[in-house]
Amino acid sequence: MIYETPKTIRFSHCDPAGIVFYPRYAELCSEVVEDWFADAIGIGFAELHEALRLGIPAVRLEIEYLEPSRLGEVLSFRLAVTDIGNSSFAVNIAAVKDGRTRVRIRLKSVLISLETMRPVPFDDAWRERLAAYLDDAPE
Amino acid sequence: MIYETPKTIRFSHCDPAGIVFYPRYAELCSEVVEDWFADAIGIGFAELHEALRLGIPAVRLEIEYLEPSRLGEVLSFRLAVTDIGNSSFAVNIAAVKDGRTRVRIRLKSVLISLETMRPVPFDDAWRERLAAYLDDAPE
Amino acid sequence: MIYETPKTIRFSHCDPAGIVFYPRYAELCSEVVEDWFADAIGIGFAELHEALRLGIPAVRLEIEYLEPSRLGEVLSFRLAVTDIGNSSFAVNIAAVKDGRTRVRIRLKSVLISLETMRPVPFDDAWRERLAAYLDDAPE
Amino acid sequence: MIYETPKTIRFSHCDPAGIVFYPRYAELCSEVVEDWFADAIGIGFAELHEALRLGIPAVRLEIEYLEPSRLGEVLSFRLAVTDIGNSSFAVNIAAVKDGRTRVRIRLKSVLISLETMRPVPFDDAWRERLAAYLDDAPE
Repeated sequence: MIYETPKTIRFSHCDPAGIVFYPRYAELCSEVVEDWFADAIGIGFAELHEALRLGIPAVRLEIEYLEPSRLGEVLSFRLAVTDIGNSSFAVNIAAVKDGRTRVRIRLKSVLISLETMRPVPFDDAWRERLAAYLDDAPE
Repeated sequence: MIYETPKTIRFSHCDPAGIVFYPRYAELCSEVVEDWFADAIGIGFAELHEALRLGIPAVRLEIEYLEPSRLGEVLSFRLAVTDIGNSSFAVNIAAVKDGRTRVRIRLKSVLISLETMRPVPFDDAWRERLAAYLDDAPE
Repeated sequence: MIYETPKTIRFSHCDPAGIVFYPRYAELCSEVVEDWFADAIGIGFAELHEALRLGIPAVRLEIEYLEPSRLGEVLSFRLAVTDIGNSSFAVNIAAVKDGRTRVRIRLKSVLISLETMRPVPFDDAWRERLAAYLDDAPE
Repeated sequence: MIYETPKTIRFSHCDPAGIVFYPRYAELCSEVVEDWFADAIGIGFAELHEALRLGIPAVRLEIEYLEPSRLGEVLSFRLAVTDIGNSSFAVNIAAVKDGRTRVRIRLKSVLISLETMRPVPFDDAWRERLAAYLDDAPE
């Protein structure tokens, strides 16, 4: 399965050259993962952080900027899980417009306890939730 | 030569877990490059964008999050140029605290004309400015 | 008429105390006005800025923080126009949750030409668009 | 006494019209207060939040946008305390360039306990720290 969510390029994303300022895609990446957890994984960030006292900080983020995007465009962010480790997972996210990938993101995150700030191994329930979105990199 | 600039971890950088929210390092990366252009390269972003009508959008950004950073800490951001192409250049940036690298960033950018949005080959003056900071990856 | 749009409190909005960092409401205010223009006024910001070469910079912004909001909460942002001047307009925005106003915003903006950066008087079409949302302050 | 700190208008502050995007001044306001606490009040935000478990959320923020500012300009942010209540205080901040006030900010904040999220009355030490910066609104 691939998780897909549309995002509008907002005024606040755009720089004086009229295109998306490149750090904004790191924030959009975070939004997409947040939406995916709430809508698809079934555990919103409020529950994750406040009830379960877990977090998923980034270990590694890679962003390839293939084509610029402009104010008002709606990009489809398509997310798939590419790897599930002991307590880490990796996703690929493609931001697509009219069949062309504008931006490709690879994010590796780790599940940690907010009490100890140490990694927490996935149990079967976590593994199953993530495995539902295992897929080759979405385009 | 290595360009070095200190950055304080601000309240606005920190997330509900009390550590730097990972997309904020993409913004800090942009700040460091902006400071380097103004302080070391000798062409501030205002001159670059408004007078010269040039821009340096990102082509590729990689961030490795090695250790978390907290509110009030001052990190030393150390930048070196690792590659100079025809119209693109790559920098490595290490965010260092007490001799340990907290975050390692690799950024590839391209010089473009804001009129045509097309790459502009470096002339000798640009090449010389950038070459002064050619170095192995800073730690 | 009142324009209403829901906004989820995101991880990126929250500070180390776990509540919305107060400057984020200024960004949310901008998002609400951007949504209102696109969805209700019928002129998205891309058309406004790029085709019409008009902008609506803020003249004055007031935000009252009545009650804190937390990660994952969905607030209803309710916007009404409270004043229409020669080339300026004022809106009130209430961010409401469970019948209680969490935040009250008053924003005065001015229509300007992006070519001259000078105010542009509203024509009848603009006046009519804005007048449709004239209302007492929403609660 | 007036607290004064320079801030450079960065690329990330500017919108597609090439001027500072108005919500960015709310963030700059927070930065100025953070600098004032660290440099002048003598209690940095890390100590305030983590050691003392206190916070100073905003109660009310007003921003008047008098003149636009552009990429690369250095504004002097001048802060004075205008009121000290039981557990709240108000500051005025003027962002000044070449003797002209570009932006005027009024911020009212309240000292709270992060444990109870309730107001904490100022003791004499707090009152003295703040009173040192009592002044008419800076221009």
